[in-house]
Amino acid sequence: MAGTTQELKDITIAFDVMGSDHGPEEVVRGAAQLSIEAPHIHALLVGDRELIDAALADTKHRAEQISVQHAPDFVGMDEKPGEALARKKNASVAVAAQLVADGEAQALVSAGNTGAGVLACARHFKLIPGVRRAALAAVYPTRGTRGEKQDPFSLILDVGATVEATAEDLVAFAVMGSAYARIISRNERPKVALLSNGVEPQKGPPRVVDAHAKLSSMEGIHFVGNVEGVEIPKGTVDVIVTDGFVGNVCLKMLEGVHETVMDLARYAYKEKLRWRAGLAMLSSGIQRIKDITDWEQYGGAPILGFDRIFIKAHGRSKARAITNAGKVAAKAVAHQLGTTIQEGLAK
Amino acid sequence: MAGTTQELKDITIAFDVMGSDHGPEEVVRGAAQLSIEAPHIHALLVGDRELIDAALADTKHRAEQISVQHAPDFVGMDEKPGEALARKKNASVAVAAQLVADGEAQALVSAGNTGAGVLACARHFKLIPGVRRAALAAVYPTRGTRGEKQDPFSLILDVGATVEATAEDLVAFAVMGSAYARIISRNERPKVALLSNGVEPQKGPPRVVDAHAKLSSMEGIHFVGNVEGVEIPKGTVDVIVTDGFVGNVCLKMLEGVHETVMDLARYAYKEKLRWRAGLAMLSSGIQRIKDITDWEQYGGAPILGFDRIFIKAHGRSKARAITNAGKVAAKAVAHQLGTTIQEGLAK
Repeated sequence: MAGTTQELKDITIAFDVMGSDHGPEEVVRGAAQLSIEAPHIHALLVGDRELIDAALADTKHRAEQISVQHAPDFVGMDEKPGEALARKKNASVAVAAQLVADGEAQALVSAGNTGAGVLACARHFKLIPGVRRAALAAVYPTRGTRGEKQDPFSLILDVGATVEATAEDLVAFAVMGSAYARIISRNERPKVALLSNGVEPQKGPPRVVDAHAKLSSMEGIHFVGNVEGVEIPKGTVDVIVTDGFVGNVCLKMLEGVHETVMDLARYAYKEKLRWRAGLAMLSSGIQRIKDITDWEQYGGAPILGFDRIFIKAHGRSKARAITNAGKVAAKAVAHQLGTTIQEGLAK
Repeated sequence: MAGTTQELKDITIAFDVMGSDHGPEEVVRGAAQLSIEAPHIHALLVGDRELIDAALADTKHRAEQISVQHAPDFVGMDEKPGEALARKKNASVAVAAQLVADGEAQALVSAGNTGAGVLACARHFKLIPGVRRAALAAVYPTRGTRGEKQDPFSLILDVGATVEATAEDLVAFAVMGSAYARIISRNERPKVALLSNGVEPQKGPPRVVDAHAKLSSMEGIHFVGNVEGVEIPKGTVDVIVTDGFVGNVCLKMLEGVHETVMDLARYAYKEKLRWRAGLAMLSSGIQRIKDITDWEQYGGAPILGFDRIFIKAHGRSKARAITNAGKVAAKAVAHQLGTTIQEGLAK
C-alpha cells in the first residue's frame, strides 16, 4: 500500500446531512452509528442544526465524536446543480466541501444531488497533479469475488462526471480506479480493463485505442486489456474504465435489469400462490440474481481525481449505507488515496 | 406503409450457407423449411454444392423453389473479415452479395462472420441516398410489447457497424430503425429514442445533443426524446438509437446478464434438489427473465442503409431461426424497406 497509514483517530469525516431521499434523520442515524462502531472517527454533521439535534436526541451516539455545522440550505434532487448552487451560497454540500478544503475534515460524505456534489468538489477541491478531469466511480456487485476479503464488488468509472473523455483521461481513470480498489477492496493487484467493442487492442474509437497503447506500457497497474460489455455483470475484472457517457448508460442498464428481475419477483409473490413456495425455495437464487443486478446495495461511490476525498452515498441510502460510506471515506484517508493516485500517475 | 407491396411470389432470398456455427446443414434445413412454409419465396443457396445437395437429400423441401450456386470458400468466425475476403475472392457471402446486387435475388441472409457480411454489403451494395454510414440493428426481447401483433421485441441500432457516429448518422439510424419497425413489427408509429445519460435534450455528447435537435423537428418519425440505459431492458420504446460503440457494449451486456441468469438456473438444477421443485414452479418466471435477457432468441438482425436487404442471422442460429430470417427478409423486400427509408430521410 502506498504512503504511510495515518492514525485513524486523527480522521474527521464531514457528512452532508441534507437533501437525501430519506431526509436528515437517516444520515444523522448513520453518523451516530459510526460514532459507536468506529470510536476513532470524528463526524462533522453539516446541515440544519435543529433537525440534526432532534435526530441525535433520538439516536444512540458518542457525543464527543460528533460536532455540528449549521447549513440549512440544500440542493434538491430535481434541481439543476449549477443554478441551485449559484442561488444557495450556503447549501450544505458546498459548506461541507469548504470545511474539507479548509482542513476541518479530511473527507466528505453526501447522499444528496450527485451533480451538486461533483460541482462542489470541482469548486472547493484541487485536481491531483496529472489529473485533467475527475471521475465518478460506481461500485456494483458481481458473481466473482476479489481481494483478501473476497469482496464481491467491481468498480466501473467514469459513470457520469466526464461525459467525453480523452485517452489521457481514460489512463488517469484507470490509475485512480486501481488505487481505489487496492485500498478499499484490499486487492493488492486489481485487474484493470478498458471497456470496448472487442478485445483486440485496435478495437474501439481512437480514444480507447490510444488509451490501450498507453496503459500497456505503464508500470504499477495490472492492465489486462479490453473487455466487452458481456464481462460487466460477470465481474471478471476488478476495475472497468470508460467515459462518463458509456459508463452512465451501462450503470443505468444494470439498474433496469434489476428492476425487471425485482418486478417479476414481486409479481410472483402477489399473483401466483404456487410461485410463492417456489420463490421461498429459490430465495437464495433470486437473491443472487438480485445481488448481481442491484448496484444500489452498496452505499458509496467515490468521486476520484481531487486532492480531497468525496464518497457519494446513494440518494436512497439508509443509515447502514451512510455508516459504511463513512468507514470507506476514513479508510481512503488513512491509506492516503490521493498520494497513491499521484504516485501511480507518475509511473 | 410506404411504397406498393411487391408480389411475394417474385421474391428470391439468397442464403449464405457457409460459415455458421452449426454448419451448412442447419442453414439448408432452414431454407428447406421455408420452401414448405412459404411457397411464394424462392431460395438461392450459395455455398458448397456437394454439402448443400447432401443436406437437401436428407430434408423435406419443395425442389422447384430452391436453386444452388456453388461457392465452397467462406470466412471463418475467427478470421479478420478484410484479410479473409481479400484472400478468398469467391467466399460464399461475397458471391451471394454479388448475386443480390445483380438482381438474381432481392435479399441476403447469412449466419456467418458478421464483419464479413457488413463488408460484403459495403462492397457490393450501394448506400441509400442520404445515408452516409450503414447500421447493424439488433432485435432483443423486452417486457413491453408493441404493434398489432404484440411484438415483444425492441430494436437497438447501431450495434457495431459504425463505431463513431455523427449527429447526421444518428438521425439516419433513427429513420432506418423506424422504417424497419413499421414494416417488420407492423407497428404503425414506433417510438424512437436516443440513448443518452439523461432525458433532458441538452444531456450527452454534442453528437447526441445535435441529433436530438434535428429529430425533434423531423416529420414522419415518432421521436420521443432521450432515454437512459435503464429503459433498454424494459422496452418502453420501440427503437433505441446510438452509435456502434455504445450499442455493441449494451448488447453484449444484455448477453452477460443472460448468461449470469442462466448459470444460476443451471446451477440450481444441478446442485440443489430443493431448488428443483422451486424452479419447476417458477419456470415461467425464469423463462420471462431469460426472454428479457436473451437477445439471441430472435434469429435475424438487419444491416440497414444499403439499397439491398441483408438479414444477419446469429451464428448459433438453428434451422428455425434461418427460416424466420428468410421470412423477415421477404417481408422487408415486399414492403420496400429501402424506399421507405429513402422517403423517411427526405422528410
